Amino acid sequence: MPVVTFTTDFGTRDGYAGAMKGVILSIAPRATLVDITHGVPAQDVAAGAVALAQAAPLFPAGSIHVAVVDPGVGGERADLLVESGGSFFIGPDNGVLSLAARPPRKIYWIEAAAFRREPVSPTFHGRDVFAPTAGRLASGANPADAGPVVTKMIDLGAPPLQRRDGVLQGEVIHVDGFGNLITSLPAEALAGAGVTIEVDGSEGRFEPQVGRTFSDVDPGVLIAYVGSGGQLEIARRDGSAAHRVGAQRGTPVRARSATP
Amino acid sequence: MPVVTFTTDFGTRDGYAGAMKGVILSIAPRATLVDITHGVPAQDVAAGAVALAQAAPLFPAGSIHVAVVDPGVGGERADLLVESGGSFFIGPDNGVLSLAARPPRKIYWIEAAAFRREPVSPTFHGRDVFAPTAGRLASGANPADAGPVVTKMIDLGAPPLQRRDGVLQGEVIHVDGFGNLITSLPAEALAGAGVTIEVDGSEGRFEPQVGRTFSDVDPGVLIAYVGSGGQLEIARRDGSAAHRVGAQRGTPVRARSATP
Amino acid sequence: MPVVTFTTDFGTRDGYAGAMKGVILSIAPRATLVDITHGVPAQDVAAGAVALAQAAPLFPAGSIHVAVVDPGVGGERADLLVESGGSFFIGPDNGVLSLAARPPRKIYWIEAAAFRREPVSPTFHGRDVFAPTAGRLASGANPADAGPVVTKMIDLGAPPLQRRDGVLQGEVIHVDGFGNLITSLPAEALAGAGVTIEVDGSEGRFEPQVGRTFSDVDPGVLIAYVGSGGQLEIARRDGSAAHRVGAQRGTPVRARSATP
Repeated sequence: MPVVTFTTDFGTRDGYAGAMKGVILSIAPRATLVDITHGVPAQDVAAGAVALAQAAPLFPAGSIHVAVVDPGVGGERADLLVESGGSFFIGPDNGVLSLAARPPRKIYWIEAAAFRREPVSPTFHGRDVFAPTAGRLASGANPADAGPVVTKMIDLGAPPLQRRDGVLQGEVIHVDGFGNLITSLPAEALAGAGVTIEVDGSEGRFEPQVGRTFSDVDPGVLIAYVGSGGQLEIARRDGSAAHRVGAQRGTPVRARSATP
Repeated sequence: MPVVTFTTDFGTRDGYAGAMKGVILSIAPRATLVDITHGVPAQDVAAGAVALAQAAPLFPAGSIHVAVVDPGVGGERADLLVESGGSFFIGPDNGVLSLAARPPRKIYWIEAAAFRREPVSPTFHGRDVFAPTAGRLASGANPADAGPVVTKMIDLGAPPLQRRDGVLQGEVIHVDGFGNLITSLPAEALAGAGVTIEVDGSEGRFEPQVGRTFSDVDPGVLIAYVGSGGQLEIARRDGSAAHRVGAQRGTPVRARSATP
Repeated sequence: MPVVTFTTDFGTRDGYAGAMKGVILSIAPRATLVDITHGVPAQDVAAGAVALAQAAPLFPAGSIHVAVVDPGVGGERADLLVESGGSFFIGPDNGVLSLAARPPRKIYWIEAAAFRREPVSPTFHGRDVFAPTAGRLASGANPADAGPVVTKMIDLGAPPLQRRDGVLQGEVIHVDGFGNLITSLPAEALAGAGVTIEVDGSEGRFEPQVGRTFSDVDPGVLIAYVGSGGQLEIARRDGSAAHRVGAQRGTPVRARSATP
């Protein structure tokens, strides 16, 4: 009863996600299918990578994670099967797997006919390559049969972070559905007394209060805290920090210590 | 093969719902996971309570219902496990469980370490308290081991309804995704001949026709009928009653009998 | 472990889809429930029919497909159970099943009490007729026990397509969530050298480049290609063709051969 998860930008108006599920259940009828999300913003590879990295580590070892945010489908990018941390990651070689499958233990290109559904549509590898591969693995196939082992995959890289003049400088790496800002600053940025957090959005420069959870501040007030992923986050109680600050991915965030 | 359902305001852009599912499958690999909805409007506890109450009674006895609309997460509110009607309800003590778990047969605070995932993130009890509790129950744990029994939980209360001068006065308690208005008036409000329904929205006062189903009226016309939940509802055929009337939760609705 | 899929316009704010799932699991606890989509635009029967037809053929034979886009619920239209291609299709007789259950092998009206949940709400046959029917089938009931066999169901018909003066004339039959235009023109419309594709939207007449997949053209450029469903599609690389062209369902599309 292996678990197969889905992280896509297919949205929920069409039959695309359903088509992938049908392919998998046709090959592996006992698979447990779990949606992580089909609501990644269209073609936003980095947002898909973040969503997958938020959820995948919580699943049991041996889970099979399929991620399809794939603007380059049918072009020159490879189709990947990656082993990492005892689980499997399947998707295009554009970085969407790279935050979750870290470090990759083994990387395969999916080229074997048994792992594809011929003829492969040049615009829907989700249905014709990634779903069949997930189905094969779920029914016990050896990942090594998928295709050649390679040594590299595209990596979105470590989130930007630098220390300069005693100031830790990072940025917003993800805006979640609540408008909370997930940043590249580690939890340690909030350690020590008298830390000041600054965030520079299109609405101006803001200095959120430092706290532990939303209710530590009054409604409408910005708060910086250690988020559930272990990074510094900025939220607005009962509202959207992204709207208040005018923040998006890439918006600069700084932690300034009182005692350098 | 116990059923675990989810009702949250997590939306479908992030990995939060997936993280909860991963935690549960890691504890109870044979659980059947069912999304009720992850589209409750952000932090709208009352809307979450209504969605859960619409769906939960249809599930088999023994089902485990997890509801996470939780603006007060990590603050002073308790984490609840409630037994009611042979099923289990898990979520924050803010009323989100109170319309479905009615009457509560037993209320526990979730405090035992075995029912939590340490360290508990102060901003994500869904992943670190509610999901582990659901997983433990799904794998056969005794609910009494979750923590102390308490006698009270926050209750959103009976929907507002009063009779005055022969007029039954209530209000809109939920606007659904079609723009249909679900009211606090019971089915009996439509019994008897010559009943007039009035709804006072920002677009004016409207008197819907009384009928049985949408196609009883012409396209674009407002209709009052007994909804699938047994309450009086107001819809607009092939359109949104909420837009037409300018109605939202709390909008007054009255039933006026011809023969008082 | 029969598969039951869902295609509805219930959206994701309410408990309606959850209620259907609860009914099915109460009857058939071992059913595998799969969402195709709950995001069909409200009351858009044709869009629901397309989504179901995109996904259903990929599921294993014996799957049970429930489709509820049902503006005429509770009125005179019949409740259908259709056998086609070894699988089962359940929904209102308004055409929503007709693109997937093609050709229908056997059509039943669902009238037997054992296939309904009494009393049937006149506004929610999804919960009270279609879900119980799916549950009964999933637990081994004979479809012939659902009700009388009939010989006709409403059919949305073959997509519009005609050849005139050597020009193949069709139209957009679906706009997907990416803004890609799925047309009624068959793959053969792109065969042969020197084909010109024209699409007449509210933003003007456009002649997309002809290619194989999105990355064959530069960002922002329109491309016509054979889509994953075997029809001619028009997309805009890294954008929405629907917005660029001003296209919607019914927008005219033509294929003009260089050599008539």
